Amino acid sequence: MPTTVKAYAVLETNGSIEPVTIERRDVGAHDVQIDIQYCGICHSDMNFVKMPLPESPLVLGHEIVGEVTAVGEAVTKHAVGDRVGIGCMVNSCRECANCLQGQEQYCLNGHTLVFSSPDRDGTMTQGGYSEMIVANEDFVVKVPAALDPAAAAPLLCAGATVFAPLKDWKVGPGSNVAIIGLGGLGHLAVKFAKAKGAVVTALSRSDRKRDDALRLGADAYFATAEQDTFKTLANSFDLVINTVSGSIDVDAYLGLLALGGTLVNAGIDSEPVTMNVYNVIRNRRSYTGTHFGGITETQEMLDFAAEHGVTAEIEMISANQINEAYQRILDADVRYRFVLDNATLTS
Amino acid sequence: MPTTVKAYAVLETNGSIEPVTIERRDVGAHDVQIDIQYCGICHSDMNFVKMPLPESPLVLGHEIVGEVTAVGEAVTKHAVGDRVGIGCMVNSCRECANCLQGQEQYCLNGHTLVFSSPDRDGTMTQGGYSEMIVANEDFVVKVPAALDPAAAAPLLCAGATVFAPLKDWKVGPGSNVAIIGLGGLGHLAVKFAKAKGAVVTALSRSDRKRDDALRLGADAYFATAEQDTFKTLANSFDLVINTVSGSIDVDAYLGLLALGGTLVNAGIDSEPVTMNVYNVIRNRRSYTGTHFGGITETQEMLDFAAEHGVTAEIEMISANQINEAYQRILDADVRYRFVLDNATLTS
Repeated sequence: MPTTVKAYAVLETNGSIEPVTIERRDVGAHDVQIDIQYCGICHSDMNFVKMPLPESPLVLGHEIVGEVTAVGEAVTKHAVGDRVGIGCMVNSCRECANCLQGQEQYCLNGHTLVFSSPDRDGTMTQGGYSEMIVANEDFVVKVPAALDPAAAAPLLCAGATVFAPLKDWKVGPGSNVAIIGLGGLGHLAVKFAKAKGAVVTALSRSDRKRDDALRLGADAYFATAEQDTFKTLANSFDLVINTVSGSIDVDAYLGLLALGGTLVNAGIDSEPVTMNVYNVIRNRRSYTGTHFGGITETQEMLDFAAEHGVTAEIEMISANQINEAYQRILDADVRYRFVLDNATLTS
Repeated sequence: MPTTVKAYAVLETNGSIEPVTIERRDVGAHDVQIDIQYCGICHSDMNFVKMPLPESPLVLGHEIVGEVTAVGEAVTKHAVGDRVGIGCMVNSCRECANCLQGQEQYCLNGHTLVFSSPDRDGTMTQGGYSEMIVANEDFVVKVPAALDPAAAAPLLCAGATVFAPLKDWKVGPGSNVAIIGLGGLGHLAVKFAKAKGAVVTALSRSDRKRDDALRLGADAYFATAEQDTFKTLANSFDLVINTVSGSIDVDAYLGLLALGGTLVNAGIDSEPVTMNVYNVIRNRRSYTGTHFGGITETQEMLDFAAEHGVTAEIEMISANQINEAYQRILDADVRYRFVLDNATLTS
C-alpha cells in the first residue's frame, strides 16, 4: 500500500511552491526507502516551474541526502540507518553503450530523472522537497560520515556536474584551470579543482566576489567585464569550465585556452551558440559540454569530497521559504546554495 | 650571391599563374638547398590568389619534394643527395610553449609560412612552384625511399593535416572514424585511418564517390544528401574528421558522435559556425579543429606512410597547366590531387 508523505510542489506552470501530500510506492525487492533530511535548491529546478507540468502536483528537488529506513529483500548495497544520497536520476536503461560504461547520465534511451519522468511502475517520479522517497538501490549513493549532510546535499548535482569534467579531462597537479561563474556550480568547481591540485583562476563578471573566490581556494581572480582580462589570460588554460547558464562570448573564452585546451559547458545556453572556427583550429582547442555524473563517479566524487573536506557553502531554509529562495536565486542573492531542511515540511 | 631560379607565380590579385624568375638566398650555415622535383597543388594555394598579395610576384606551393643539392657548414640533419620535403612552414619562433612541445604549427608568435611570410633575412618567402628552394634544415623532413616522390608530395600538407588528428585523438584498432569529404585531404584521411587500424566510414554528398572510397579502404560509405544517413549513423563515431572547406551542418554531424566523440575541423569555414550547446552536452561531444602538423609529427607521418604504403592519388601536370588545374579544382574535377612536375618549369 503506497505511503502518503508531506511534500512541497508546484501545482501549475509559473505557480508558486505549495505544501501538498503525495504517494510513495511500496518498497520493492531492489528498493530502498529514504527519510529525506536535506535537499539542495538548484537553479535548474526553477526551469521546470516555467514549463508545462508533466503532472500536478510536481515535487522538485534533485540534491537529496537522507537516511535509509527500509530496504527490499534483494537489496545488497544499503542498509537501514545508512546515510545516503540521490541526485538527478533514479534509473536508466542499463543496457545501452553508455550505461554499460557507467555513464548513465548519457543513457541513449533516456534515464529516469528523479522528478518529472515516467517511472518503471507507470507513475511519475517526484523529487526531494518531500519527507521520504523510495528508489532503486543502484541509483542511491553513500554519503560519507565525514561530510556535513546538509552541506553535502548540493554535491549530488552541482558537485557531480563539476567533478566529472575535472576527471574526464584529467585535471591534477600542473593543470591550469579556470572557472567561469561563481555560483552553486562555480564555487564547488573552484574547491574541487583546487583539491585536485590544479592552479585555479576564478572568472566572474565584476570584482564583487573576489574575496570569496580567494577564500574558497582560487589562486587568482579576474573580472571578465575588464577587457584586459582576455588579453592577460590569452592562451593560458588547459581547461575552462563554464558554469554560467545563459549566453557567453564563446570566441573570447576560447581565446583563453592553451594548446589542446578545452572549454566545457556545465551550464546551459538555450540560444544557438556562434563561434569562429579559427578559434578552435588555433591552439587545437575544443568546445564541449558535460551532463552531471554517472553513479560510480558520483560516489567517487563524494568519497573525494570527504577526503579533501569539500562541501558546499550553504544557507539553510525552511519549507515555507522556498518561494522566497527562488526569487533570491533569480536575484543572484545566495552564497552559494540554499538547502531545504526537510524536517520543516508541513502539510 | 642570390641565385635566379625559374618559377610560376601570381602577379596580381585574382590573376593567373605565370612564368617568372625569382631570387633564392645563398645557403646559410644552417640551410639546405633543394632542387624541387614535385609540388602538390593544394586548394588553399588558391585562397592566396584572391587576397591582396603581400608581394608580387608571389610563388605558391607548399607540398614540396626534392633532392638536397647543397648544405651549409653547420647542417647535420641532411646531406647532398637526400630526398627531402617541405610543407607549410619553414620556420617558427622556437621558444614559445607550443614550439617547445614540437607543435610549431601552433607557434604563438606566428610561424613562417613557406610562401607569403617575411623571412628572417627580411625577404618574403616564395613557395614550391619553382626550381629550387633554400630553407633552414630544421624545417626540412626526410622523404623515405619507399615512397613514390610525386605521390608523396601531397603528404607534406594534406597528409600531415589529417594524420595529426588521428594521432592527437589516439585512433587505432577499435576506433570508429568517419571522414567528411573525399577530396585531397579526405582521401588521405581514409587511407591513414584505415592504416591505423580504425573502422572507417566515408561521408560524401552524393553516391558518386562510393566505389572510389571503398577502393581506397573505407569500410562503409554514406551519402549525406540522404537524411536517413544521420539517423542510421547517430551516436556512432569516436572521431569525425571534417575535410570540407565551407559550411557544414555542425549540429547534424555532432549527432553522429558516440560518447566522448570529437568532430575535428581540418577544413576551414570562413563564416561563423552555429550550433546548439545541447549537442555537445549530449554524449559529451567535442567540437575542435586542427592545423597541419609539427615537424616531428610530419616526419612520423612520412615514416608511417612508407611503412603502410600510403600515398596520394595524383594527376601529374606540367607548369603550363596550373591555371587549368585551378579551374578543375574549383569544379571538383580531380581525383584526388594535382602534382606539378617541376621539371616542366620554363621562363
